[in-house]
This record gives sequence, structure tokens and C-alpha cells, in this order.
Amino acid sequence: MREVAVIGVGSSIFGKFPTKLVTEMGKEAVQAAIEDANINKKKIQLAYASTVFGGAVMGQRILNEVGISGIEVFNVENACAGGATAFRGVWYAIASGLYDIGLVVGVESLTTSPIAGKLIPPEKGDLQGQFGNNMPAHFSFAMRRHMEKYGTTMEQFAKISVKNHHNGCLNPYSQYKDELTVEEILNSRMICDPITLLQCCPNSDGAAAAILCPMDMAKEYVSKPISVMASVLKMGDYEYRWNDLATSDLSAKCAKEAYEMAGCEPEDIDVCELHDAFTYSEIAHYEELGFCPLGEGGRLIDEGITEIGGKVAVNPSGGLLAKGHPVSATGVAQIAEIVWHLRGEAGERQQPDAKVGLAHTMGGEVANIECGACAIHILKR
Amino acid sequence: MREVAVIGVGSSIFGKFPTKLVTEMGKEAVQAAIEDANINKKKIQLAYASTVFGGAVMGQRILNEVGISGIEVFNVENACAGGATAFRGVWYAIASGLYDIGLVVGVESLTTSPIAGKLIPPEKGDLQGQFGNNMPAHFSFAMRRHMEKYGTTMEQFAKISVKNHHNGCLNPYSQYKDELTVEEILNSRMICDPITLLQCCPNSDGAAAAILCPMDMAKEYVSKPISVMASVLKMGDYEYRWNDLATSDLSAKCAKEAYEMAGCEPEDIDVCELHDAFTYSEIAHYEELGFCPLGEGGRLIDEGITEIGGKVAVNPSGGLLAKGHPVSATGVAQIAEIVWHLRGEAGERQQPDAKVGLAHTMGGEVANIECGACAIHILKR
Repeated sequence: MREVAVIGVGSSIFGKFPTKLVTEMGKEAVQAAIEDANINKKKIQLAYASTVFGGAVMGQRILNEVGISGIEVFNVENACAGGATAFRGVWYAIASGLYDIGLVVGVESLTTSPIAGKLIPPEKGDLQGQFGNNMPAHFSFAMRRHMEKYGTTMEQFAKISVKNHHNGCLNPYSQYKDELTVEEILNSRMICDPITLLQCCPNSDGAAAAILCPMDMAKEYVSKPISVMASVLKMGDYEYRWNDLATSDLSAKCAKEAYEMAGCEPEDIDVCELHDAFTYSEIAHYEELGFCPLGEGGRLIDEGITEIGGKVAVNPSGGLLAKGHPVSATGVAQIAEIVWHLRGEAGERQQPDAKVGLAHTMGGEVANIECGACAIHILKR
Repeated sequence: MREVAVIGVGSSIFGKFPTKLVTEMGKEAVQAAIEDANINKKKIQLAYASTVFGGAVMGQRILNEVGISGIEVFNVENACAGGATAFRGVWYAIASGLYDIGLVVGVESLTTSPIAGKLIPPEKGDLQGQFGNNMPAHFSFAMRRHMEKYGTTMEQFAKISVKNHHNGCLNPYSQYKDELTVEEILNSRMICDPITLLQCCPNSDGAAAAILCPMDMAKEYVSKPISVMASVLKMGDYEYRWNDLATSDLSAKCAKEAYEMAGCEPEDIDVCELHDAFTYSEIAHYEELGFCPLGEGGRLIDEGITEIGGKVAVNPSGGLLAKGHPVSATGVAQIAEIVWHLRGEAGERQQPDAKVGLAHTMGGEVANIECGACAIHILKR
């Protein structure tokens, strides 16, 4: 397998843009990535595009706007992990030698989707979902369990949102740029006890893109190629949630595999974008990704370890909570954020001297199983 | 690259089943393929699932029903070529050595989809589509051009539907089992002049699945593994439709590449499943796939060359026209049909002594470009 480099990334500004087409946002991100990679668009041989609600052959429609045709295109969906799945597809095609230059793009317009202003509805046949075990309900159980089992406090959960909203203020691509207090977060509208509005990620519109090539070709295009050290994608296992609701063994398993593949340890990660769909999620993922022992996620946020400038900056972009969560764009946007940090180009939100970064997404709760997909990528400057 | 074998295939019966869940149909096809492959389901390491309208993480939801978890899953969409795209994904993962055992499943329930009883609507931003250049309109132009340029007749187009409906009568998986006459076809309701109802593929529900492994492992499971000799997937080029509407250079280009990869010629193909979305399509694809020179597709149907027992049996399953077209299931169902013929297990519709087969799908017209995706696979016994 060849070492693969990310040579270009791009993103649209995340937010609510009900008059913007998915193809417009996708074009914006792809053109930014092409410019960043300093590459002639005609060199792109393969594209993976990801969307849930963007419509059929979305990748081809975006490429058509950009002026690329005749190449192999996969459109993939893996709920919230779709962008990361697309990234893995291109990574593998290049690592294995099928192609040399590949494009990833993730796009979503939730404000124009059938779920605009609503919760994601359960799929037909998902009885748990139809009886009300929707996303916030599911995570409210897990959050309660974490509090009961490990003594994690509401204030600790709220501090996740405080940190990520603070980071969002420093990020020009972020949907929200408001400093929030613990009190504001805990007193915001109750969504599903104990989850309040400002502990949930918002509905968002946006797109992100990346361009990959073999590391030994990367210097032809850019001076700071970023190496992809690990790529792991798995669906969840059955029995887990029955044993312990407090954390997920899927992320832990994927992380273990990713660290082995990258030849590094959790201690080596300087910057991390992880799937903070709810405040609870970030605390649980600290533990699952090995940044602390099980049950100690609350301590990490208390001690400032995951702030920008701390041991491992987590969600310096603002995360899903503040930067926004245009479903299938998120996984690619996380990679873009990590790349900017590893290049030292993250501006006011730069994690100092970041050498190794990790991107983590989860997607698609399914009745009786823990998760549809978890994807982890580790990148190195 | 390793030689890859199809060791198991399965399908649900195609038709209109508004009370059946996509997960039920998917489970039926996957279980049939697992049984056909004589394999323990726990050996499956990778799955590619395809759907347009089946909802998020459909692959995981089907696997959950079947009792498979913890593996890597891609959900892919490429309009009508989605099933073939998924097949290519699994083929490549095995050919390149990433995994040994992979599952492909394609599912669609059009009768419960948002387009039930309607035409596929244009995507937002597709001005041509919004002004009425929808699928039947698009193909009606091409059909007229083929008649004008090459002298192809309405009777020749109608004979495609006669042949494919006859074949459907012999196929237990087919949606329609009615013998039709040229007169019935030409006198059926006008959809978009000159395309009448019985020259259009129907709305369908159904699922199909396949299991692949390296050829050198295949004999552990089955006595008649079928080799995948070529896999090609491409999106269309820009300018083509401006030059000549009568046929598509995309299918021709993909076919050329596929024949080179397989080391064979059009003359070697004994059985072919191709994308007869409309009667015109089959005639044009005869030419594009090299079964005859440009403009001579009408002669092939007149001379019975593409009937079962002819030089190359085309759409012995009944094709999209009679067997039905559950969008993302089609590409996988075509592979299943080819596999049955190459094994000599196609019952009453068996192409005698079939040694080499070709499956061809096209998906997703996009404004200004010719086609979103064309996929071709060549298989050999």
C-alpha cells in the first residue's frame, strides 16, 4: 500500500442558506480544494461524493458545475459518517494503486431537505424509533447513564458546549459565533431531559472537499502535504448497548485499529475533530478514543486539556455543536480542519505545533444495534 | 490484482409490493445469496449496499436483519447504475486484496418512494429537466434521431418489448409475465411521442444480492464459481449529445475498456443483460456494445440474433422492460442473471452453452451531460 497525502482542502462557510443549491455549495468547496492543491482539475481521475438529502448522482452534478467529466464517480451515504466514508474510498483507491489523483466532496442542505426544522424521522420498520427512541432520546439515556455511573455533572457537559462555541468564534467557516456560558447552556430550552437546546448540534447547510494523491507525487503540487496514517470504517455490533449505555465500544474498537495502523498512541494526538452531536458525545468519545480512562471524560474538560493550547485540542473548529453539522459534509470538513492545523494555517484557532491529528465520525443509529458507521482517520504533517 | 469470483447470487421476485419493507426484500436476497454461496454469514467482511429511495444506512439495516454486524459497510448511489457501482466496489476490494469475502446488495421500493406513480422529478437547478426534458422526453428525442439517421422503424423498437416480455414469461423473478404483440405495444398509451407505455420500463420493488471472493478460494465453497473478467465505471462526457443524439459514446467507451480488460471481443459475448429503460435504449446499446455496427441495431432484432438461442441472448431475464426496474437492485440482478446462465441454471430461459456474459447499466441523466454513470461487467464461467 502506498502512503497517501492530502494535498488540498476546501470548505464553504457552514450555516443556513435555504436559497443555495447543493451543487453551488459543492462547487465552492471543490474549487477551493483544487486551488489549495495547486492542481489542474483535468488531472482528477476519481471522485467520491457524499450526501443524504442532496439527490441522485450529486457527485456528477457538482463535477458538471466545476467542469470535470468522464471519470469514475461513487456517491456514498453513511448517515453522519458519509463524508468520512467518501474520504476512505478515495484514500483506498490511491493507497492500493488504482488511481493517482482523487477528489472527495461532502454536501448537505438540511434547510431545504425533507427534515428541515424537524428531527430525523425513524426509518420504516424501526419500531424503537417509531415509539420515540429518536436521536435526542437515545443520547439522553446515555448521558444519564454516564452521570450515574461515573458522576459526570451537568456543568461538565455544558462546558463542552462553552468550549466548542468559543472555538467557533475563532473559525471563519463556523455557523455560530457566540460566546456562551454554562448557565445559558443549561437554561436553554429543554429538548429531551437532560439535553437542552444548546447541547445539540444544529441543522446546517454546507460542503467540504479534499484532494488526495500518493505521497511520492505530492511535492509536485504543494510544499506541505499531509500524510494519511490510518483509515478505519466499521458498522456497530449488536449486543453492546445492552451491556452498558454509558459509552460505545464501536469508537473504541475503531480507535484501537487506527492507532495500530498509524503506529501511534492516543498521547500522540495533538488535535482532534470528533463527533459532538450532543455534549455527552464529546465526553464519551474522549474515553473511547483513549484520551483518558473510562469515566474520566468530565475531568478532561474541567482541566482544560481539550482546549486549544491544551494537551489535545478537541473540536477547535467549533465541532458539530458550533461550526454546524451539514450531515455528509462533516466528515470531510473535519479532515480539512485537521489539515489546516497540521500545516499551521488554522489562524486564531491554531493548536500550537500540531503534528498528529485525528478525525472521528459516527453515523446512523439503527434499531437494536449501536451505530451504523464509525470512521476514524489519523493524519500527520 | 487477484482474479475474483462470484460464488453466490440471490434475488427477490420483482413487482409492486407496497407493504414490503426494503429491509425485508434485502434480507430475502442476501439470505438467498448466502445459501447459494454455501458460506457461513460470519465470514462476510465487507458489504456494499445500494439504494436511491431506501433511506439512510440501508446496508446496515439489512445486515442487522440478517444477523451480520461489525463489518465495513458502504452505501452507494449512482441512480440506475447504483447496483453495478456497489458490485464494482466489492469486486475491487477483493481484487486488490483488502478483503476476501464481500457482499453486494441493491434494493429499491419505488411503490413506497416519493416518486411512486410519478416520473423521476428533475433535481433542483436542472433547468432542462424543469422545462420538461425529463427521462421519456430525453429518450424520445434520441429515438426519433435514430429513426431519422438510420431508418430504424417503430416495429423494430416494438419487437424489443415483444422479445423482453416473452423472456419475462420464462423468468420466475419477473414482474410481468405477459406475451405482447407489436400492435399492442405500438397502440398502448402514448407517453412521449413516439414512446408508448409498453416501451417504458415500469416502477418496481425488489432486491438482489451477490457474494464475491478470490477465485483461488472459491472452490472451498462452490463447484461453479464465475469469474469477473472486467469492471468499468465512468461518468459521461460533456459535448457528446451536442454532436449526435442517436447513440451514446459513453457506453461505447466503457465497453471498449471492458473488452480490453477481459481480453475478449463483442463476438465472444453469449449472454447480455443491458439497460433497456426504453425500447430505443436496447437498440442503441447493441451498437454501443459492439454487437453490430452503428445504425444496425434494428437489423439485430429483426434477425433474432438477440433472442434466447441467438448469437447473443440479450435480456433473457425480461430486462428492465418486463422483469422490472427497482432502480438500485437492477445492476445486481443483472449480475445474478448472468451468473445463472453461465452456470447453466437459468431454467426455461437458459442461453445454451453460455460461456461469457456482459452486464451493462446506465444511470442518472444530468443537465448538459450525457449520463451520470455507465457500468459494465464481463463474467466468464
